[in-house]
Amino acid sequence: MTEPPGEFELIAQLAALFGTPPDGLGIGDDAATWRSSGDVVQVATTDMLIEGIHFRLDWTSPEDLGWKALAVNLSDLAAMGARPGRALVSLAVDPARRDLILDVARGLQAIAERTGTRIVGGDTVRSPGPLVINVALVGEADPARLLRRDAARPGDLVAVTGRLGGSSAALALLSERPAPLDPTAAPPLAAHHRPFPRLAAGQQLAAHGVRCAIDISDGLASEAFHLARASGVGIEIDVGQVPLAPAAVQLLGERRSRELALTGGEDYELLFTFDPSFSDELASALEIDGGLTVLGKVTDRVPAGTVQFVEAGQPIDLAQKGYVAF
Amino acid sequence: MTEPPGEFELIAQLAALFGTPPDGLGIGDDAATWRSSGDVVQVATTDMLIEGIHFRLDWTSPEDLGWKALAVNLSDLAAMGARPGRALVSLAVDPARRDLILDVARGLQAIAERTGTRIVGGDTVRSPGPLVINVALVGEADPARLLRRDAARPGDLVAVTGRLGGSSAALALLSERPAPLDPTAAPPLAAHHRPFPRLAAGQQLAAHGVRCAIDISDGLASEAFHLARASGVGIEIDVGQVPLAPAAVQLLGERRSRELALTGGEDYELLFTFDPSFSDELASALEIDGGLTVLGKVTDRVPAGTVQFVEAGQPIDLAQKGYVAF
Repeated sequence: MTEPPGEFELIAQLAALFGTPPDGLGIGDDAATWRSSGDVVQVATTDMLIEGIHFRLDWTSPEDLGWKALAVNLSDLAAMGARPGRALVSLAVDPARRDLILDVARGLQAIAERTGTRIVGGDTVRSPGPLVINVALVGEADPARLLRRDAARPGDLVAVTGRLGGSSAALALLSERPAPLDPTAAPPLAAHHRPFPRLAAGQQLAAHGVRCAIDISDGLASEAFHLARASGVGIEIDVGQVPLAPAAVQLLGERRSRELALTGGEDYELLFTFDPSFSDELASALEIDGGLTVLGKVTDRVPAGTVQFVEAGQPIDLAQKGYVAF
Repeated sequence: MTEPPGEFELIAQLAALFGTPPDGLGIGDDAATWRSSGDVVQVATTDMLIEGIHFRLDWTSPEDLGWKALAVNLSDLAAMGARPGRALVSLAVDPARRDLILDVARGLQAIAERTGTRIVGGDTVRSPGPLVINVALVGEADPARLLRRDAARPGDLVAVTGRLGGSSAALALLSERPAPLDPTAAPPLAAHHRPFPRLAAGQQLAAHGVRCAIDISDGLASEAFHLARASGVGIEIDVGQVPLAPAAVQLLGERRSRELALTGGEDYELLFTFDPSFSDELASALEIDGGLTVLGKVTDRVPAGTVQFVEAGQPIDLAQKGYVAF
């Protein structure tokens, strides 16, 4: 933790907001400390968001930015089957917009409280350039229950949690319709501004024997490719089975929503593979956490590392069908 | 770990450079993992460096930037008596300067190898704005051996490792003498570009019963104030005892060097307090790690949280003596 001179008051406000961890030093020493549990694996991830690239403050409130900056990291933990977690937050802000800091912090703390995450330290920097926020997050998992990208096996089914396309539908609405949005847009906007990471689902999957998962940050097509590549397998996705966010379909139509579900990104649902014999058990385990939808299978197709999309039983090329501009 | 589409090759190069941890998942999954040891405290810190604020690429090479970005975080661990460590690195780079990434990574890996740190993950972002690098670092310490800011007690002596003012002397030379610098400037330039964190000294201090330390990132005066404030004590510093970097004195004179040692910053030495009965033991323990210089004492002066500077036995006001423009 470093700070510009004269920032004592701000640091004190942040420390009060985030609370002092009961098990260690918090904000105000050279580093944050905590005791780790016994036989665990530390699971760590980081993401940097930059104004003008990843967000616009005329579309996103500072509170929502804080929420989302932590949410995208928590989603990585969810995709590992891990539990939160301690977060370190770095923030670069123009001195003229210094008031934003506490608003961003409130959004961070809002999702931290709802997920059992502690914000234990950070760095605030005065910079006249774009606002930059970086979150680094450390969680824990049981060594035998990690979800990995490289554990898909031929014969597995492929499934997702929740429904896709809502977040990118909101982004499309924001960029194409600057006028006030009608109430139908509320669910996609919430999905875009305040995604809720699938931590419970990730831990349920891990507890029920699933070993392969990834979170959907860049669109289903891209994430399926990551799994296929890391696992050295083929993956077949039935485009017709992709579960679409209902409000996205209502606002943008089914075809556009399907395109956004495949390539839009920022859904922060989990894409995972599992042995077909787990199906019933998994379906009931995930019932209260957004359910699951089977939309494909893992194959031993060569070359390994490729994804085949099918529609109505026929192989298709996403680009030729107009779904994607890869 | 997220990456822009088409970045597979870069990620593979970085993964090869940083190596795959033997005890966990590395670069390429949703998060990095490692097993933590038994009864330990996790110690975590983060720092963000921004081009134009914290560094200039016409003064600092990309390799040196990578080195320093990790070094400043390792210095925080040193000030806690902690051991490295796993690091997560986020980097925002203009696509036109994409070649910088591997150079920065080489500098990161150079100091990582010398300190037993592993770079386990990160985030690369394309951004047309200033180059931004954020390092988050997690190390470990023995629960009973943490060095804290709030553990100074009246009667303690105050000491520093190494010599001060070298780094800020280099900065002064770079900004005041754009012509090629003479060889005398090499040690200060090395101190500025490639500071070596006092990890060994921090662990030695902790092992020999010291409980209060801070690293000198903002100048001795500011750090002494942090210790006094956190511990609720007074601190008295004998300005004449401050150990000065010899090359700084040679290049800029003693008075200017003393000013830079007090307020220049970026020395990354340790400032610590200890019971006087430890003196001989500590002096011999630190002999091979830059030695120590006693330059003051902890008092019960009221109000608590203040620092008194003395010179030739007389209390002085740093600003009135021309040492500082606070």
